[in-house]
Amino acid sequence: MIQRIDVSRGHGYPLLLGATLDELGGHLKTAYGTSGHYLLITNDVVAGYHADKLLDGMKDLKTDLITVPDGEQEKSLDRISKLTEQALQFKADRDTVVLALGGGVIGDLSGFFASIFMRGMRYIHIPTTLLSQIDSSIGGKVAVNHPSGKNLLGSFYAPQAVWTDFDTLQTLPWQEMRNGLAETIKHALVADPDLFEFIEEHADAIKGLDYKIIKEMSLRSLAVKVKIVTEDEKEKGNRMLLNLGHSFGHALETEEAYQGVMHGEGVSIGIAAAANLSRERGLVNDKQLDRILNLLMKMDLPTTAKAHDRAVLLGHMSADKKNKAGNKVLILPVGIGRSVIAADCNDEEILRAWEKVII
Amino acid sequence: MIQRIDVSRGHGYPLLLGATLDELGGHLKTAYGTSGHYLLITNDVVAGYHADKLLDGMKDLKTDLITVPDGEQEKSLDRISKLTEQALQFKADRDTVVLALGGGVIGDLSGFFASIFMRGMRYIHIPTTLLSQIDSSIGGKVAVNHPSGKNLLGSFYAPQAVWTDFDTLQTLPWQEMRNGLAETIKHALVADPDLFEFIEEHADAIKGLDYKIIKEMSLRSLAVKVKIVTEDEKEKGNRMLLNLGHSFGHALETEEAYQGVMHGEGVSIGIAAAANLSRERGLVNDKQLDRILNLLMKMDLPTTAKAHDRAVLLGHMSADKKNKAGNKVLILPVGIGRSVIAADCNDEEILRAWEKVII
Ligand SMILES: NC(=O)c1ccc[n+]([C@@H]2O[C@H](COP(=O)([O-])OP(=O)(O)OC[C@H]3O[C@@H](n4cnc5c(N)ncnc54)[C@H](O)[C@@H]3O)[C@@H](O)[C@H]2O)c1
Ligand SMILES: NC(=O)c1ccc[n+]([C@@H]2O[C@H](COP(=O)([O-])OP(=O)(O)OC[C@H]3O[C@@H](n4cnc5c(N)ncnc54)[C@H](O)[C@@H]3O)[C@@H](O)[C@H]2O)c1
Repeated sequence: MIQRIDVSRGHGYPLLLGATLDELGGHLKTAYGTSGHYLLITNDVVAGYHADKLLDGMKDLKTDLITVPDGEQEKSLDRISKLTEQALQFKADRDTVVLALGGGVIGDLSGFFASIFMRGMRYIHIPTTLLSQIDSSIGGKVAVNHPSGKNLLGSFYAPQAVWTDFDTLQTLPWQEMRNGLAETIKHALVADPDLFEFIEEHADAIKGLDYKIIKEMSLRSLAVKVKIVTEDEKEKGNRMLLNLGHSFGHALETEEAYQGVMHGEGVSIGIAAAANLSRERGLVNDKQLDRILNLLMKMDLPTTAKAHDRAVLLGHMSADKKNKAGNKVLILPVGIGRSVIAADCNDEEILRAWEKVII
Repeated sequence: MIQRIDVSRGHGYPLLLGATLDELGGHLKTAYGTSGHYLLITNDVVAGYHADKLLDGMKDLKTDLITVPDGEQEKSLDRISKLTEQALQFKADRDTVVLALGGGVIGDLSGFFASIFMRGMRYIHIPTTLLSQIDSSIGGKVAVNHPSGKNLLGSFYAPQAVWTDFDTLQTLPWQEMRNGLAETIKHALVADPDLFEFIEEHADAIKGLDYKIIKEMSLRSLAVKVKIVTEDEKEKGNRMLLNLGHSFGHALETEEAYQGVMHGEGVSIGIAAAANLSRERGLVNDKQLDRILNLLMKMDLPTTAKAHDRAVLLGHMSADKKNKAGNKVLILPVGIGRSVIAADCNDEEILRAWEKVII
């Protein structure tokens, strides 16, 4: 049974949830007929696990496969250039539909490629990581990195649809699951106290890879993102709430040049830092702070970072593109299940928050 | 006196025509206040002639200048990467406004850069060539080239405004003026018989660089583009008419790898080829064909190309992104001042049209 949720009002698109990969072909035939051209973009790891099943369903549709190497480093202008060459070899044109099969890297890269190749082709995202299913496939943000910073070049470009097969998670390694769990806990802290409790209650089942529970958690988690981006498509208002933990997290990732710390780990430590700042301001009490830190730890997520110069980390935070002149804008949890945009965070309290999470 | 024409209905923007460069600062202050950050992107040739005057008017606005080398080769992903680095050095963020001072190259490059840097900054185009004033600054198409083809990577991204100072044309070399004239004659053939007559009548004045006449011609010419793109923002219908001469022209440019033939020359030869095809189909008569060829020649524009293998040229035409499977889609003049989209052009008649213009 495919469940449908619509993202956004105006230029909206549907999330088709609980679909299986081999059903996509049938859906495409209904949507676009049988004469179209498809470009399936994936990476070598995901291709090994899931491309065959998807291609099975595409048998009578003209589909070309492009496999890129695995890894964040592929979100680059160089890879865009190479994709351009390959797409032309397959005679892609602006009527071609891109199918992006993979996690956030493949989604961001292929979505950005689709947004600029011949000034725009359609694309469908088929997210295969927890993070991409509950977060990156929703909201129309696509981008590549630049040596000077992450996601520096990109656009807002909505897919035609997101095709989510939760069964693909069954091949996902636990450390990648954790990345998605960090964002899931973030969603709970931003807007859904019940989700937070659900994860607390089912922590063991989740760690034990009970995919039925993971699916229910995912559905609740992605609903938070859908609600927020629908209200704020262009990231002018409440969408900033989704940045909880990210300003701190990005600073750590930058300092470690994306090597030492995984994205989910950065977010987790970032949530811990933000929660400590909230505690200092009296926005959460000791018990709530403990619940937040405990849940992160229960999911094998770190709440402390190894020694770094706090002033350097603070410096990285000013490079964040959401800052307004002067004080820093940070997202702070208020109790469990609500967060606020605090535009008045001064350097001293931020340094104290860093101190709490640096060992 | 600034004349204002609005492009498009929904996401429209104004052309501010007949403004002077030093008045732009005042306009920006009114529009955005005094606290904003501006990034003036231009090239070394245009900077030499016109940057000072523009910067004079920007004295109390925070403005950083980026000068790129002159030339079509700068419309590249490499240049986008370099601009990203420079913009960050100037602490640009998504609230920065890009001012693109130059011809179509600077407009396309800076507009595309603005469209993707941090997922989109605002930009204002200040076109300084005839071609950019009457054509490329209107319609929101921006792009860079790729080794596999021109304008392959880009987007539809409307500027905040286009600031057109016709006086900048006074430093434009005649051979660049000719590029714009080819598009102007194209506009006349697509939609404005009176404009065609105007150019015929004032051909000597135009060649003698009577800037009053050139300005009047430009205003009429750009009005054609405004009307067509307003009716068809996303290039799904009549906007294709503006492709008159371009499928043939691009084929020539591709064959000569953009070296031997200037863009305006390609378009001119392309118009001649299309007009010959129209003649064969009885869409124009001998007299009208002569008028078209004569006007092009009068403006020093070529109507014949040096020897090329016609089959190779035909091959380049199939790479055009506007083609639909099977027959080629070409734009054909019907008499003087109207053109049609002919989706049924077969290879034989196209080869015969090439034959007429190859010597
Ligand atoms: N666009 C957005 O709104 C948004 C939001 C958050 C994150 N992101 C981006 O998402 C990216 C991270 O996404 P991610 O965490 O999905 O990373 P990812 O795409 O790199 O996937 C993580 C790893 O899991 C592998 N993998 C994917 N699916 C698998 C499966 N089903 N089974 C086994 N292995 C599988 C991948 O090959 C990769 O090695 C970052 O680049 C980040 O910037 C974008
Ligand atoms: N976006 C669109 O809709 C669209 C439409 C048509 C063409 N284009 C693009 O436009 C580009 C061609 O534009 P162009 O013909 O303006 O070329 P251009 O920008 O290269 O300018 C031509 C030459 O004139 C110089 N120049 C510019 N202004 C001058 C001035 N006032 N005085 C003296 N010299 C000056 C430039 O430095 C350059 O050497 C191509 O890349 C083409 O693809 C885009």
